[in-house]
Amino acid sequence: MPLGERGGWDKSESRYCGVETDFDNGMPHLLSYNLSTGGFDFVVATLMDPAYRPSLVERDASGGSNVLPFAASDLVLSPSQWSSHVVGKISSWIDLDSEDETLRMDSEITLKQEIAWAMHLSLQACLLPSPKGTSCANYARCVNQILQGLNNMQLWLRIPLVKTDDDSMDSNQLVSLITSPDAQILPLKNVSYISSWILVFPPWSHHEYHIGLQLTYFIDSWELWNSFRLLCEHHGQLSIALNVLSSLPSANSLGRWFGEPVRAAIINTDSFLTNARGHPCLSRRHQKLITGFFNHSIQIVISGQSVHSLPGGSLDSAANHTVNNVDNAQRHPLRPYLDYVAYMYQRMDPLPEQERFELGYRDFLQSPLQPLMDNLEAQTYETFEKDAVKYIQYQRAISKALQDRIPDEEVTSLTTVLMVVGAGRGPLVRAALQAAEETGRKLKVYAVEKNPNAVVTLHSLVRIEGWENEVTIVSCDMRFWDAPEKADILVSELLGSFGDNELSPECLDGAQRFLKEDGISIPSSYTSFIQPVTASKLHNDVKSHKDLVHFETAYVVKLHSVARLAPSQPVFTFTHPNFSTEKSNQRYKKLRFELPSDTGSAIVHGFAGYFDATLYKDVHLGIEPSTATPNMFSWFAIYFPLRTPVCIQPGSPLEVHFWRYCGSTKVWYEWCVLSPSPSPIHNSNGRSYWVGL
Amino acid sequence: MPLGERGGWDKSESRYCGVETDFDNGMPHLLSYNLSTGGFDFVVATLMDPAYRPSLVERDASGGSNVLPFAASDLVLSPSQWSSHVVGKISSWIDLDSEDETLRMDSEITLKQEIAWAMHLSLQACLLPSPKGTSCANYARCVNQILQGLNNMQLWLRIPLVKTDDDSMDSNQLVSLITSPDAQILPLKNVSYISSWILVFPPWSHHEYHIGLQLTYFIDSWELWNSFRLLCEHHGQLSIALNVLSSLPSANSLGRWFGEPVRAAIINTDSFLTNARGHPCLSRRHQKLITGFFNHSIQIVISGQSVHSLPGGSLDSAANHTVNNVDNAQRHPLRPYLDYVAYMYQRMDPLPEQERFELGYRDFLQSPLQPLMDNLEAQTYETFEKDAVKYIQYQRAISKALQDRIPDEEVTSLTTVLMVVGAGRGPLVRAALQAAEETGRKLKVYAVEKNPNAVVTLHSLVRIEGWENEVTIVSCDMRFWDAPEKADILVSELLGSFGDNELSPECLDGAQRFLKEDGISIPSSYTSFIQPVTASKLHNDVKSHKDLVHFETAYVVKLHSVARLAPSQPVFTFTHPNFSTEKSNQRYKKLRFELPSDTGSAIVHGFAGYFDATLYKDVHLGIEPSTATPNMFSWFAIYFPLRTPVCIQPGSPLEVHFWRYCGSTKVWYEWCVLSPSPSPIHNSNGRSYWVGL
Repeated sequence: MPLGERGGWDKSESRYCGVETDFDNGMPHLLSYNLSTGGFDFVVATLMDPAYRPSLVERDASGGSNVLPFAASDLVLSPSQWSSHVVGKISSWIDLDSEDETLRMDSEITLKQEIAWAMHLSLQACLLPSPKGTSCANYARCVNQILQGLNNMQLWLRIPLVKTDDDSMDSNQLVSLITSPDAQILPLKNVSYISSWILVFPPWSHHEYHIGLQLTYFIDSWELWNSFRLLCEHHGQLSIALNVLSSLPSANSLGRWFGEPVRAAIINTDSFLTNARGHPCLSRRHQKLITGFFNHSIQIVISGQSVHSLPGGSLDSAANHTVNNVDNAQRHPLRPYLDYVAYMYQRMDPLPEQERFELGYRDFLQSPLQPLMDNLEAQTYETFEKDAVKYIQYQRAISKALQDRIPDEEVTSLTTVLMVVGAGRGPLVRAALQAAEETGRKLKVYAVEKNPNAVVTLHSLVRIEGWENEVTIVSCDMRFWDAPEKADILVSELLGSFGDNELSPECLDGAQRFLKEDGISIPSSYTSFIQPVTASKLHNDVKSHKDLVHFETAYVVKLHSVARLAPSQPVFTFTHPNFSTEKSNQRYKKLRFELPSDTGSAIVHGFAGYFDATLYKDVHLGIEPSTATPNMFSWFAIYFPLRTPVCIQPGSPLEVHFWRYCGSTKVWYEWCVLSPSPSPIHNSNGRSYWVGL
Repeated sequence: MPLGERGGWDKSESRYCGVETDFDNGMPHLLSYNLSTGGFDFVVATLMDPAYRPSLVERDASGGSNVLPFAASDLVLSPSQWSSHVVGKISSWIDLDSEDETLRMDSEITLKQEIAWAMHLSLQACLLPSPKGTSCANYARCVNQILQGLNNMQLWLRIPLVKTDDDSMDSNQLVSLITSPDAQILPLKNVSYISSWILVFPPWSHHEYHIGLQLTYFIDSWELWNSFRLLCEHHGQLSIALNVLSSLPSANSLGRWFGEPVRAAIINTDSFLTNARGHPCLSRRHQKLITGFFNHSIQIVISGQSVHSLPGGSLDSAANHTVNNVDNAQRHPLRPYLDYVAYMYQRMDPLPEQERFELGYRDFLQSPLQPLMDNLEAQTYETFEKDAVKYIQYQRAISKALQDRIPDEEVTSLTTVLMVVGAGRGPLVRAALQAAEETGRKLKVYAVEKNPNAVVTLHSLVRIEGWENEVTIVSCDMRFWDAPEKADILVSELLGSFGDNELSPECLDGAQRFLKEDGISIPSSYTSFIQPVTASKLHNDVKSHKDLVHFETAYVVKLHSVARLAPSQPVFTFTHPNFSTEKSNQRYKKLRFELPSDTGSAIVHGFAGYFDATLYKDVHLGIEPSTATPNMFSWFAIYFPLRTPVCIQPGSPLEVHFWRYCGSTKVWYEWCVLSPSPSPIHNSNGRSYWVGL
């Protein structure tokens, strides 16, 4: 039963909540108990009898082995039950990086058998146990082999959500590493030195021992994931089940996971607090995290024993409760946890209409428009004209410019010549006339538009609105128009997501011939910005094309599942008008990003790009996250990919170089990383991506 | 005039010696003076008048610029003179990473104009000045643009051969960085902190000042090259002109350059010492380096003023001597330097015959044989049978085994059954019979061979030699042969360059059915080895295929232009016979390489692989460099590439994992790097490269 209904638009996977169970030969009962009694949507269930070990199987005379019936028949559930309600949980004892060769061999055989069984059952996903010990190479090698021949199934690698902060730790400090309920040991990459293994009986657990370690440095489970995924080459079917524990790493560190393919978050009952009425609840930081998961289509899975004693509940029963008689109507002991998660889900603010509209565009790569080379279609004009906020800003800017240009005492004697260059179907013409009316200034408008199809509509607009006396329509490319007089104000909306990327500089350089020397350009300047991001999904989408061209192309994209690793920084600025004779629209910029110290290591898949434009004086317009104009939807961000993702270590800066280059027929960007280690220069000579002049 | 004639086989580029000159409008004179009077083979000459600066050129009314005649006409030399005797030297003042934007722009325009001019002249190469300052990104970006549209011309990037050893330096120690004659400033990447710029007048220079720096760490010009080349993505036409200075870095550090595309070594006259007779000579370390250059087809270029006063010479004249009257028969002031270089060239030991034969195989990638799946050709047998050393080792091993097996007192009563499995055309049969004769043991030989074509020749051999009584020929795959009796000794030569890579383990596992329980296998064991290498040429050859398959294939190759970065380490060992029931020929090995601390940073393009085999007791056979059997030529090394070269920082180990994996129809390797950062797992499931069973 889904966690809640937020309206017809809510198709998020995170509506479904699962429960982790152990092996049970009576799968039909396990399913009905957890789904009907418990109210969960699916179970994460061990598929193979934990007693089965390949090396214990007797070999027959021929040297072959008898595969024991390690599980009940596939017939116990219907195919749709298997695929809709069961996530296979791979035996947690497997350890492919053990020093013990027999255990390693057993583990590999078991893993491959279980995955084969799960594929036979058409499960949608399998949960792989967390890597154990300091190395994961052999585990990753085996999973990578499996991934090469996998059907549609997803493999969820269980990763405990742990990052000890080295700032807060003394050397040799004892860190007890919390293990998951099935006693998985935490990954230890980046532990520079393990002093000793110790056994700890943590206060929150009554009957389990956990394994702890004496460490000299810090651990960061993200690094473990990163190694595993690099070894498996960002395979699209390898994803993450984050095991949320009672303490959480810093917000910056958590942020990295939102650029990763996290499919599930497993929350231990241990991680819940108890509210005044004895019910389970979560800390504020946990709540915020869970809300983040909901917003990123990450499914919650409840795991562990009930540790909250409630009327009607039972302390010692849990997800794999085996009471045969379900009819005793006993309440499922984990139901209170599910209820709390459902409460959190239902309590979320509904998405604003604009966000709902953009749901389908999230993390979907689009080629940027080429409005100069191509003519826009009516549909495109339609969409952009709806952006009221944008035109309000333009109207404000024009009003201010008119007032500066014409003193109040001359409003009747002077007429301002305003040219809209790139008038499209007329929204800026309307904004200009409204500004004139608002300020009481007399205005003569030229509407210059190169797209003859838009000009048709423009004529109709002028006729309908009765603007024939104020507005002159010019069907011409602004770069080549021979204007009959010079303008006081030049208004344009030629900006792309990255500011200059739709060639506003080149167009306005052409148009400023007919701007008076003291004339005003609206916008008067604009600056592009970039910031490094983790964006696994975008990386894989680019990679799926299997060519160089797509890795050297910038995309327009509604960024959602990305981790923004550092504040954005300005790249290129253009100012208009620019009457300098030395001017060039070529640009070169070095940037140096420092990640916040508590982020930990991170991977950079590419750069998110934005712009901010000064329309006139204090009236600005932009999508740079820290200063973005609210409720404006004309621009998504731009995304510049990196051919090879770059790993950043804490304290080591990321140095990036960006170029804007102008040829005789095209303009393009080149980019590269210099530090921590040099990348190839992307898009040399605009070989892959360019904007036509 | 070439430096010397070492025989018809000597086609090395390093026979030719050049001289660096400045700009001279009288190119015909410059050429005849340096070639005829000087005896050089080519000049490295500045092509453009150094007075020319693009920003000083007046623009005409149309906004275009008048390109001044920056050089004399192309007609001053014939096309073949230009291409055979002139390397273009790009103006050394250019600085594309200057903070001064005008200088940057001028530099880019000049660089592109000069390269265009050099292409127009069909020059074979241009010498690019060394990057200046701490960054080379914009220079690399511009060169990379040029490389995309270059004809066959090579670009030689001038790199000063400098690595200050951080061990030998105090913090804040003053390091005076020697500049090249045209006052190029040394690159400063990896200088973590520049305290101040200072001007130094070094004692070895009378009239030039040099620029020095106060540093807090160390510099390594290899890192500058590495950044530049990574930015240009290992482009095949970007190579190196090493500027050799008077002091040399450590041998380990120098070794790195032999894996790089060094085309020329520019030796400053400053770097020469003076011998007892007043003639220029080089230090022993310099001599060794120059000999290394000769062995790697690197051309020497003499640069600078004459600093050795010799009878008939003149102190103040040099390569761009402009005395118009050549007939004064004045000796070229740099001739003594050339004579010394020629003397060194001629003095080199001639190449051994085997090395001469293998010249054509140097750094040439070959697919490993698949002798199990395919039948070898007569030509292949012919080549391998010529390897006398190998069969002498086999004969020694068989002799020892026969003596151990049959005590002297039983030589007449007992007959040893020896089976040659994979007998080919019979060389091991001959070795076995010779061993029997040498030791006086009686021998019964079975020659088992699966290739029916080889069996034809084998029959002929037995008939010609009259071995009919001792030798039984069996035309059968050893894995499936039903032997009439069991063997005392099993002899095979199934080893590949990587030991087990031609499936010796699988073949001998099949054959040991007919070996007595106490029988002997020759070889009794073998081990593979790998070591990390820098191998730019191999990397580019693999890359030229533009696919994944070639990056996941091992190649047999006569390694020559490689830098071996660390001693090799053992990987997989197989022992025969192996009657264990638990045996598996799958293997997994973790390796950790540490580079010598004075190497500096390095790039790893892949791994060189070798084997060593114990034939019997102390008789071994192998190609592992530190223990290689001398004068054996049956095996070149094997090379495992990495898809993305890995950069190693000093003190940071390289962790590598190798797997040998066995399927039902094939055997393959997988490999990956874990540290410094994880690579993808190569050749998953043997998707790209495998050996058929």
